[in-house]
Amino acid sequence: MKSKTEYITINTKEPIEIVNITRDVEEVVKKSGIKEGLCLVNPMHITASVFINDEESGLKEDWKKWLEGLAPKDVKKYKHNLTGEDNAHSHLKRTIMGREVVVAITNGKLDFGTWEEIFYGEFDGQRPKRILIKVIGN
Amino acid sequence: MKSKTEYITINTKEPIEIVNITRDVEEVVKKSGIKEGLCLVNPMHITASVFINDEESGLKEDWKKWLEGLAPKDVKKYKHNLTGEDNAHSHLKRTIMGREVVVAITNGKLDFGTWEEIFYGEFDGQRPKRILIKVIGN
Amino acid sequence: MKSKTEYITINTKEPIEIVNITRDVEEVVKKSGIKEGLCLVNPMHITASVFINDEESGLKEDWKKWLEGLAPKDVKKYKHNLTGEDNAHSHLKRTIMGREVVVAITNGKLDFGTWEEIFYGEFDGQRPKRILIKVIGN
Repeated sequence: MKSKTEYITINTKEPIEIVNITRDVEEVVKKSGIKEGLCLVNPMHITASVFINDEESGLKEDWKKWLEGLAPKDVKKYKHNLTGEDNAHSHLKRTIMGREVVVAITNGKLDFGTWEEIFYGEFDGQRPKRILIKVIGN
Repeated sequence: MKSKTEYITINTKEPIEIVNITRDVEEVVKKSGIKEGLCLVNPMHITASVFINDEESGLKEDWKKWLEGLAPKDVKKYKHNLTGEDNAHSHLKRTIMGREVVVAITNGKLDFGTWEEIFYGEFDGQRPKRILIKVIGN
Repeated sequence: MKSKTEYITINTKEPIEIVNITRDVEEVVKKSGIKEGLCLVNPMHITASVFINDEESGLKEDWKKWLEGLAPKDVKKYKHNLTGEDNAHSHLKRTIMGREVVVAITNGKLDFGTWEEIFYGEFDGQRPKRILIKVIGN
C-alpha cells in the first residue's frame, strides 16, 4: 500500500465563502501515482467543511442564505459565544455541510460523476486555514 | 492491497424515494474476496445521498416530510433555479442527508450493528442514476 | 496492508449526551502500529453519531438546543413512533450530525488540526451502545 499526504492553505476574502478545490485534489492524486484506492479530504478546522456538489454560482448563494436560516449568526443566541467567540453559528453551519469527503480513485483518477466537484466551505474565514488531502492505495 | 469497483444504476418511480441497497453492497464485498478493509458507497450524482439508518417504512415517510420542511421544493425560492432547473431543493436535501458512507469490512462482511442498513436517497429521480461501490483491503 | 478493529461501549446517563472519545481512538491507532493510513469511527447504532468538532461545554449545549429546534422530540409528530417507538427524533438528530468520521493517520498519529476532537453524540441513550474503530494502512 502506498500513501501520499499534502496540506493546502486557504484564506478567504469573506467570512463565509465556498471555494472549488477539485483541481488541487486532482493534482495530489496524480502526484501520488496511486491507481486504485481512496482519497480523504478534510479541513483541519472545526468551522469549515469539505463537501461535494455542483459548480453553480446561484446554488452557492442558495447555500449561504439557507444555512443562515437554519443556523443564524445571531451572536447572543449561543452559549459558545460566552467564551468570547462569535462563531457558534460557524460550527453549526459546518455541522450541516459535513466535515470530510472520501472519494474513490479508479485508474489513477477521482472516480466522479459528470457534475461532482469538491468544495471547501468556509464559515469563519479571513484567516489562513489548512486542508488535508490523503490518498492511500496501490 | 486488493480493490474492487462496481457501479449500480437506480431509476426511481417517484421524484423522492428511499431505496434499501444493502444487499447490492454485500454482493460486491463478497465478490471482492476482501476480508479486512473499508467499503465506500456514494451516488455519482449531486441530488442524491447514500446513508445508513433503519429499515422502517414510517421513518422513510418522516424523512421526506422533515426534509420538505427544512428545504422546501418552492421553485422560486432559489437562485439555482434561475438556470432553468427546478431542483435546488434536491441539492439541499442531499446536503442534510450526506453524500457517502464508509463501512468497515471485518471477516469478509459489512461490520454492522443489528439495525444498520444502507439506503440510496433520491431527491430528483425518475431517471437512471449511478452509485459507486468501492472496496479496498486484504 | 495491516488492519486493526476494536469496539468500545458507551452507556450515557442522559438520553442526549455528547462524549469526547478522542483518547479511545488514539489508543487503538497506537496499538495498531499503523503509521500511514485511514481510521474509520462509527456508532453501530442508528440513533447516534460520531463527529469531529471543538471540546467546549457551551457549544455542546448549543448543539442540543439547536437539534431540538430542527428535529423536536414531539412524539406524535412522526410516523415511526406508530411502531411503539418514541425515538423518531433521535434518528433525525443523528442524520444532521452524521454517522461516521474518517481520519487520516500520518506518522502513526491522528492527523488533526489544533482544535479537532472526536465525539460520540448519543440521541437515545441510557443503554449500552457500541462504537466501531477500524484502522487500515501500513
